[in-house]
Amino acid sequence: MSESKDKYLFTPGPLTTSKTVKAAMMRDLGSRDEAFIRVVAEVREQLLALGQVSRGTGYEAIPMQGSGTFGIEATIGSVIPRGGKLLVLINGAYGERIAAMARRLGIETVELCSAENQVPSQGDLRETLSMDAEITNVAVVHCETTSGIMNPVEELGAVVHEFGRTYIVDAMSSFGAVTLDLAAAHIDYLISSSNKCIEGVPGFSFVIANRDKLIRSKGSARSVSLDLLAQWEGLEKNGQFRFTPPTHSILAFLEALGELEAEGGVGGREKRYRENHATLVAGMRELGFREYIAPDLQGWIITAFPYPNNDAFRFEEFYEQLSQRGMLIYPGKLTNEECFRIGNIGRLGIDEIRQLLAAVREALDALKLHVPVSVCVKSGGG
Amino acid sequence: MSESKDKYLFTPGPLTTSKTVKAAMMRDLGSRDEAFIRVVAEVREQLLALGQVSRGTGYEAIPMQGSGTFGIEATIGSVIPRGGKLLVLINGAYGERIAAMARRLGIETVELCSAENQVPSQGDLRETLSMDAEITNVAVVHCETTSGIMNPVEELGAVVHEFGRTYIVDAMSSFGAVTLDLAAAHIDYLISSSNKCIEGVPGFSFVIANRDKLIRSKGSARSVSLDLLAQWEGLEKNGQFRFTPPTHSILAFLEALGELEAEGGVGGREKRYRENHATLVAGMRELGFREYIAPDLQGWIITAFPYPNNDAFRFEEFYEQLSQRGMLIYPGKLTNEECFRIGNIGRLGIDEIRQLLAAVREALDALKLHVPVSVCVKSGGG
Repeated sequence: MSESKDKYLFTPGPLTTSKTVKAAMMRDLGSRDEAFIRVVAEVREQLLALGQVSRGTGYEAIPMQGSGTFGIEATIGSVIPRGGKLLVLINGAYGERIAAMARRLGIETVELCSAENQVPSQGDLRETLSMDAEITNVAVVHCETTSGIMNPVEELGAVVHEFGRTYIVDAMSSFGAVTLDLAAAHIDYLISSSNKCIEGVPGFSFVIANRDKLIRSKGSARSVSLDLLAQWEGLEKNGQFRFTPPTHSILAFLEALGELEAEGGVGGREKRYRENHATLVAGMRELGFREYIAPDLQGWIITAFPYPNNDAFRFEEFYEQLSQRGMLIYPGKLTNEECFRIGNIGRLGIDEIRQLLAAVREALDALKLHVPVSVCVKSGGG
Repeated sequence: MSESKDKYLFTPGPLTTSKTVKAAMMRDLGSRDEAFIRVVAEVREQLLALGQVSRGTGYEAIPMQGSGTFGIEATIGSVIPRGGKLLVLINGAYGERIAAMARRLGIETVELCSAENQVPSQGDLRETLSMDAEITNVAVVHCETTSGIMNPVEELGAVVHEFGRTYIVDAMSSFGAVTLDLAAAHIDYLISSSNKCIEGVPGFSFVIANRDKLIRSKGSARSVSLDLLAQWEGLEKNGQFRFTPPTHSILAFLEALGELEAEGGVGGREKRYRENHATLVAGMRELGFREYIAPDLQGWIITAFPYPNNDAFRFEEFYEQLSQRGMLIYPGKLTNEECFRIGNIGRLGIDEIRQLLAAVREALDALKLHVPVSVCVKSGGG
């Protein structure tokens, strides 16, 4: 289904996007002109609908310039009250990053860590919150891109809600391809970015915020550029960004939102990605690979595969062989297991997955690698 | 010279860009792949050359995701030492913004303010620095977009150097169209952005930094996302951005740098913009307008025109009339004078300036406005 002459991006983003999404960038709009203001308003409204919320039900969508990480820092740095305390549920590098950001900003931070192949449990969260009344905010990553594991944000949200704390979800890699009702999951702030499952190009992140909580955060922002409340207030005042927006990325994003809708919305996209993922995993298993994450915890966005049990395997050589065949995969990021990762999101379908699998087979042959079918599936749990 | 079917953007950016710059975005590159790494390296090297410096002479170019403001905050928040003190030379809203950012970050900040139509003087700066040994850093805006005034960054740099302080120049609106030798001007950190005089699209800013000073700033960064030293260290390590870069904007920027070179580099671009500006001012004067800034202080990037001395003038109506004719101008931002602004940068030449002037004449006729030729040119000084 890809129309690109570039290599296919089997990565967590930037992704292979449709030609029409890119073509939407062939315009120059004035950032303070009515035509662009309408685009921004439309994007903000459609984002809320993807989370099954609306302005009427008390939510606001706030785009923020920069990558997804900038949106996370804007949220962490703007909504945690001075003197507040953040609990971060960690089972990968992106959870670690949230904690590092908060500490850099001088925010008291505690961690509840799980193994990288396990998910945080309701019980552990309940125990932590019941023992520490000072915790004001809880943050967790939805799909941990480090491993591809899917954390149970609804179940965890129920506990955060039970204790009356504010709940922040990093849904960078999942939003738009995983059915999620923000209100039902008690999510106060959800962050994602333009170049993930909505299949736009990079340039900005966005936050979906509980309006009442956002307004009550006044005075907490540690930065001017990354001031989430001020960004929203600016948009409310005149529909404009405070500072230069990535006009072309936002035009591409509006087109991408339309294409998501045409695919059947979040449900339709989830279906395609699940099929991509199932095809990928079945094919990789046939070639002797196994997933790092157990099937019941594995998401359908990105999959980590441990290096084959073969001393001759060199990731750089394997990457290069695939790259020569027009396929770009992603290196690993786990702390205690050598893995590579394959994303199956973006404007790619089963045909492209099959092409990738053929390329993997060719790469293994070219490198004279035999991958034993003995690698065990790790147990999940949580 | 414009090839766009969109309205012409007579603004300070985002700008009207060439079709080829936009077409460079019709690709999807992997942000961690060799092809993109080469693009980033090429962009960084060419940026240094525009400032008449190089890695060999001790400078580094560091792109930073987000708008120009993000680059300013990255610099302010990363390089001013803990316990340091910032002096901001202010004659407009962008100088004010630097001071506001620094204060938000908890940095002790003092201001040396001039009227919005005057430039800071060497004498006042020398006096301020000689009276306050605690000042570690001095920041000034090169072309103040608020008014279009051009601040004498070389002369001011000589004084900052004399006192051994670190010099930060916000060259957002000027870099690429104003001949500047960073080393000769004693500039330690210069910040600009992708969607200004280099005529790229928005998506990132960049900092040109004195490498030794940058390395010595270790431990000062107040943010993870906007950590300038870490951003540079990441690029040095493997040529990659730490966090998702705006790949499409960067591809457009490389094309834009090539088109700048083809135009004769900074000198060639300066020549076109100067001609655009001279044509604009001559035409606007004929129509009865006068510039807010005196000619000897006025830059050739953007020009502020006071509202005509006519009670019937409504900026919104004037803007709308011009917009209907395919011309977008910019509102004013001065604190004590009602002005509108006209930028003459971007992929626009004398033909487009003449079309704008014709549209202004038609707009005045349509609104039955007679603009008296009596408005006086304000005295500059400084």
